Amino acid sequence: MNIILRYTSYLFAACWLIAACSPLLAKNISPREIPMSCYCKPCGSDCDLERHEKPGNCQDCGMPLIEGTPALSDSLMRTEKQAKKRNVAIFIHNGVEILDFAGPSEVFASTDGFNVYTVSLSEEPIISQGFIKVTPNYSLTDCPKPDIVVLPGGDTGPFIENKQLIDWIKNASTHAEVMLSVCTGAGLLAKAGLLDGKQATTFHSYIKKLQRATPKAKILSDTRFVDNGQIVTTAGVSAGIDGALHVVARLKGQAMATQTARYMEYDKWKPDEGLIVKPSEKGAAENK
Amino acid sequence: MNIILRYTSYLFAACWLIAACSPLLAKNISPREIPMSCYCKPCGSDCDLERHEKPGNCQDCGMPLIEGTPALSDSLMRTEKQAKKRNVAIFIHNGVEILDFAGPSEVFASTDGFNVYTVSLSEEPIISQGFIKVTPNYSLTDCPKPDIVVLPGGDTGPFIENKQLIDWIKNASTHAEVMLSVCTGAGLLAKAGLLDGKQATTFHSYIKKLQRATPKAKILSDTRFVDNGQIVTTAGVSAGIDGALHVVARLKGQAMATQTARYMEYDKWKPDEGLIVKPSEKGAAENK
Repeated sequence: MNIILRYTSYLFAACWLIAACSPLLAKNISPREIPMSCYCKPCGSDCDLERHEKPGNCQDCGMPLIEGTPALSDSLMRTEKQAKKRNVAIFIHNGVEILDFAGPSEVFASTDGFNVYTVSLSEEPIISQGFIKVTPNYSLTDCPKPDIVVLPGGDTGPFIENKQLIDWIKNASTHAEVMLSVCTGAGLLAKAGLLDGKQATTFHSYIKKLQRATPKAKILSDTRFVDNGQIVTTAGVSAGIDGALHVVARLKGQAMATQTARYMEYDKWKPDEGLIVKPSEKGAAENK
Repeated sequence: MNIILRYTSYLFAACWLIAACSPLLAKNISPREIPMSCYCKPCGSDCDLERHEKPGNCQDCGMPLIEGTPALSDSLMRTEKQAKKRNVAIFIHNGVEILDFAGPSEVFASTDGFNVYTVSLSEEPIISQGFIKVTPNYSLTDCPKPDIVVLPGGDTGPFIENKQLIDWIKNASTHAEVMLSVCTGAGLLAKAGLLDGKQATTFHSYIKKLQRATPKAKILSDTRFVDNGQIVTTAGVSAGIDGALHVVARLKGQAMATQTARYMEYDKWKPDEGLIVKPSEKGAAENK
């Protein structure tokens, strides 16, 4: 009986070995020559997940193929796509600087997991940069509850004194994960009292004025962005791109942010150009 | 009579000397201690022309003060402001990538000497990036004659087959100083036959497709922008900023482009990342 069982198990093992090797034998490939798995450097396109059998360049995007696994695994990409999307409200107003709001718009809309929309004081069109007429998706009164609020700059002067807007910002800050200002948009955070005890940055010409407006904050120059946790502020105009990429890196991981930067061909992004305020430093600004 | 004239002239000379030195004497400053002329590094704000008497940092913008003359002289700035402005037509369409058109919009609108406007197939609003609703300033039929045409990318597929648009691009190219494509916008130049015999670049995923569409051109990868003279093409999305700054540098001088880059806090700009095709290389693409 034992002999029968032993030979039966040998037979099963032999069958399994033949079955496992048959695809290789059919192609005359020995187990030592199992095809390589190469993937292109992440470019943000579908070819990021396409498997190639030898190094070279991707036929779709032209990026070099690298042996290994894809930068973002298929399952991770699927998980990201299915996960609940975060609402990103981009506040626009007459005189908003086009790149201030376009940079974060591009970053969040190009990354899976964000539902991005514009919001303004009313549903009336606004003029950006003197010639770009944008009709907002929502007004302050019907805007979906945001997880991330982006406050771009430009001619923010008339809006800093708008009580309805400042109240909306204060209210959003009670539940939003991130309040991100770009350029002079930091003035709106200051007016709402959200920079008190924080470190922050802004447009180079606005540093002193913002410091005077919010004496309980420490306003830094020559810093691409400053992350206090919920409150993230960036330097001027183009720095909004870097600040938004930093937020993506924090919420979605560095690989996802790098993929978005590569899609945007923004290899100029240097994650370490910003300042991430350590918990022990929070509140330190008040004592200085 | 001669003696009277001589002594009168001595008297006038003495009076002139006292008058000239009196401001210095009043401040107890000897002629050797004439105050320095310091100006801030150009930041794009009015303080660029403000004179300071000692080094340090500008009180307005915080930039370091440097001894010498302002980066752009007052007279040059006035001349630039008074010079005839160049018309910059930015073509926008449904599915246009927001940063593709926002980058050049920011650059040209932030630099003196450009009159920037959007143009589309009709005057109907378009949707950029899936959520930004922009109403164009002009349609193809009533658009002022452009000196510079910007063709951003994004979902350009449906527009490459639009005869009215391609004819408008061909017609504009008969008089425009610069035709600047960003990202997949190069496909529109290719369709109009404007890349034949030229070197060009485009979005990284579009390199091979563009090469197939325009076999008489040489399409380059890993190049931030390619300048053939009238035809300038850039790589993807964020590269439009660099391409537009290059056009400003060519038309208005490096100092003006640097000032705009500084205003935008785009110190990441590296003018030498692009390729300026030498006259001897023009047409070489056809022979390869």
